[in-house]
Amino acid sequence: MTTNMRSKNTILNPPSKKHLGEQFTRAEVQLANRNSGCLLESLRHDVTPIGQHYLLSHFDVPHVESESDWSLSVCGLVGSPLDLSMQQLKDLPQVCREVTLECAGNGRQFSDPRWPSMPWGVEAVSTARWRGTRLCDVLEQTKPDSSVVEWVFSGADRGVDGGQLHFFERSLTAADAMSPDVMLVWEINDQPLPPQHGFPLRLVVPGWYGMASVKWLRRIEAIDHAFEGYQQVSTYQYRKSDQDPGVPISTIKIKSLMAPPGYPDWSTRNRLLEAGPVELTGRAWCGGGVAVHSVEVGIDENWFPALLHPANNQHAWNRWTFTWDAEPGQHLLRCRATDVEGNTQPLQAEWDRGGFGNNSVHQVNVWVETGLA
Amino acid sequence: MTTNMRSKNTILNPPSKKHLGEQFTRAEVQLANRNSGCLLESLRHDVTPIGQHYLLSHFDVPHVESESDWSLSVCGLVGSPLDLSMQQLKDLPQVCREVTLECAGNGRQFSDPRWPSMPWGVEAVSTARWRGTRLCDVLEQTKPDSSVVEWVFSGADRGVDGGQLHFFERSLTAADAMSPDVMLVWEINDQPLPPQHGFPLRLVVPGWYGMASVKWLRRIEAIDHAFEGYQQVSTYQYRKSDQDPGVPISTIKIKSLMAPPGYPDWSTRNRLLEAGPVELTGRAWCGGGVAVHSVEVGIDENWFPALLHPANNQHAWNRWTFTWDAEPGQHLLRCRATDVEGNTQPLQAEWDRGGFGNNSVHQVNVWVETGLA
Repeated sequence: MTTNMRSKNTILNPPSKKHLGEQFTRAEVQLANRNSGCLLESLRHDVTPIGQHYLLSHFDVPHVESESDWSLSVCGLVGSPLDLSMQQLKDLPQVCREVTLECAGNGRQFSDPRWPSMPWGVEAVSTARWRGTRLCDVLEQTKPDSSVVEWVFSGADRGVDGGQLHFFERSLTAADAMSPDVMLVWEINDQPLPPQHGFPLRLVVPGWYGMASVKWLRRIEAIDHAFEGYQQVSTYQYRKSDQDPGVPISTIKIKSLMAPPGYPDWSTRNRLLEAGPVELTGRAWCGGGVAVHSVEVGIDENWFPALLHPANNQHAWNRWTFTWDAEPGQHLLRCRATDVEGNTQPLQAEWDRGGFGNNSVHQVNVWVETGLA
Repeated sequence: MTTNMRSKNTILNPPSKKHLGEQFTRAEVQLANRNSGCLLESLRHDVTPIGQHYLLSHFDVPHVESESDWSLSVCGLVGSPLDLSMQQLKDLPQVCREVTLECAGNGRQFSDPRWPSMPWGVEAVSTARWRGTRLCDVLEQTKPDSSVVEWVFSGADRGVDGGQLHFFERSLTAADAMSPDVMLVWEINDQPLPPQHGFPLRLVVPGWYGMASVKWLRRIEAIDHAFEGYQQVSTYQYRKSDQDPGVPISTIKIKSLMAPPGYPDWSTRNRLLEAGPVELTGRAWCGGGVAVHSVEVGIDENWFPALLHPANNQHAWNRWTFTWDAEPGQHLLRCRATDVEGNTQPLQAEWDRGGFGNNSVHQVNVWVETGLA
């Protein structure tokens, strides 16, 4: 009993002011205040409620009074350049899809040494219902030249990174841009995009990490070479060292999360749970058109197969469930997904210089006892 | 020129990994990822867009499938206890008001030593349009006993703080609860409350720091003594030392913020600005029924009066504007509000043990140069 109480205090008490543990900078905390993850309990929703979708904005959210002032220019190596109003875009055939997006830097907080940037824990993932039109239909209307190698997508957001003032710009190869999956989007969860999600128009690239889904989209340009903008080549690269030229970040790796059971401790976010049967649940997802094959749940050192529920569509996450008979004491709960190509989440992901693509298994510390009700 | 370039680098370059500056714990960063401030550029909106309103949830957001399962119980020392469905509440006379709310812990990040809790910078303030009904009308229907001293408001959110498992509960005195300002609310910005803002029912107490506006409101109980729940007496108290019994936190102090001009640096959030005239703008607010009297803008060491625009109603913030002729080089911009009772924001607020009620002036570092366009 004494041992148990000591363990409970370890799990549920706030950290002492004398033992600060790993340390983060004020600049990182500023970014964490500004950008926001989903709430893990929202994993119970198929579609993340409005205002809970994770959000990362590099620069300021542009102030756009009305969509009637907005137009999308499609230009460059095309036979018929376009300048489309929002109404013209909305008159095109519409598509509506649930898409899971994840920030490429999700999990950066756990890399050591850690690149100074947004110190995401595990929460930079969400699923929204996006409405818009297919990008490929618009691009084809412009009669692109056969020399087109990439399409460059420019947002209205502008700022400094690495000492360079630039608009947020990303590219896709001609083949990737012409995928029927890629959308020009003006609605999230059946309402107009709020300013911070890209009002009035954004790109959504299903299966890719979030940086590809350019917000506040103003211009698409066809070019005959590989784009070398800051957000394409200076960041969003997997690197093993400072000297590594890098491998471009693209599609989302296999990953899963758990909606933590029981009650949270305010400060540690560890959990207090009533003993007895409890349904554990969470989500699993994978990008690049690769489906989730299975999810296992870890209870301390043992792994058990979870029930994997079908996704609402091919771009949305799967729900998983597992019934656990919780016994009193301290437990470590984990979940681990495997994709249909046989890739399984690592217990600890390989170190990456920018803290990108971290798909380590999610861990939840729980204290179980009886008589809570 | 060399000097200027060195200064620019100081303002706009990311912090060195070798000079971490003040340090924050992983538990604080976890809270900063989970809770979210407004985006300072959203200060340009009278009403903070949906999903940008600041958010602090002590425990998990309760999972409520439908409002048809919800009822509000009003009980305790009353002649006619009530059990009201959402429909019964909506059938009462409705009120719709823009209300500015601020978290009592806003600015905690700047207190030294710092209490380990949510490390807010300046962004934990927002204005929403709330729709609901007057609390006093509901309370009066219950025929409260003359012995009633306080009303206790209980949310459905439950968790551990300070080692105690409890529902989030706060009280108001009989007089404060009967103020016609206090609302029972089911809509924000003309849509149903999202889960994280208290779906399906919450309290909104205009003029008070946010802890009074209990979310997921299930029960209101009339009692004949002062409520001593954890969230009432163990926290949300101004304290000068560990031994200080504390002064309860109530209404919002005079404060102002600036929407930072120009372009942000991703990592420091310092600003790059084109030389020449620029309209500085921001918001000022004060609780407790006390109006804002004036706002001054600080340009380096000099203070100038800003133009104060009328608020949309008595519970909402004021806009202020000031035209500045920005000259090249480094500048410190500040804003400072004064209320009609003569209280002015301090340059640095007095230290508080919990980091509460920090209304220090907002500071923005800017680098101005020509030829950015």
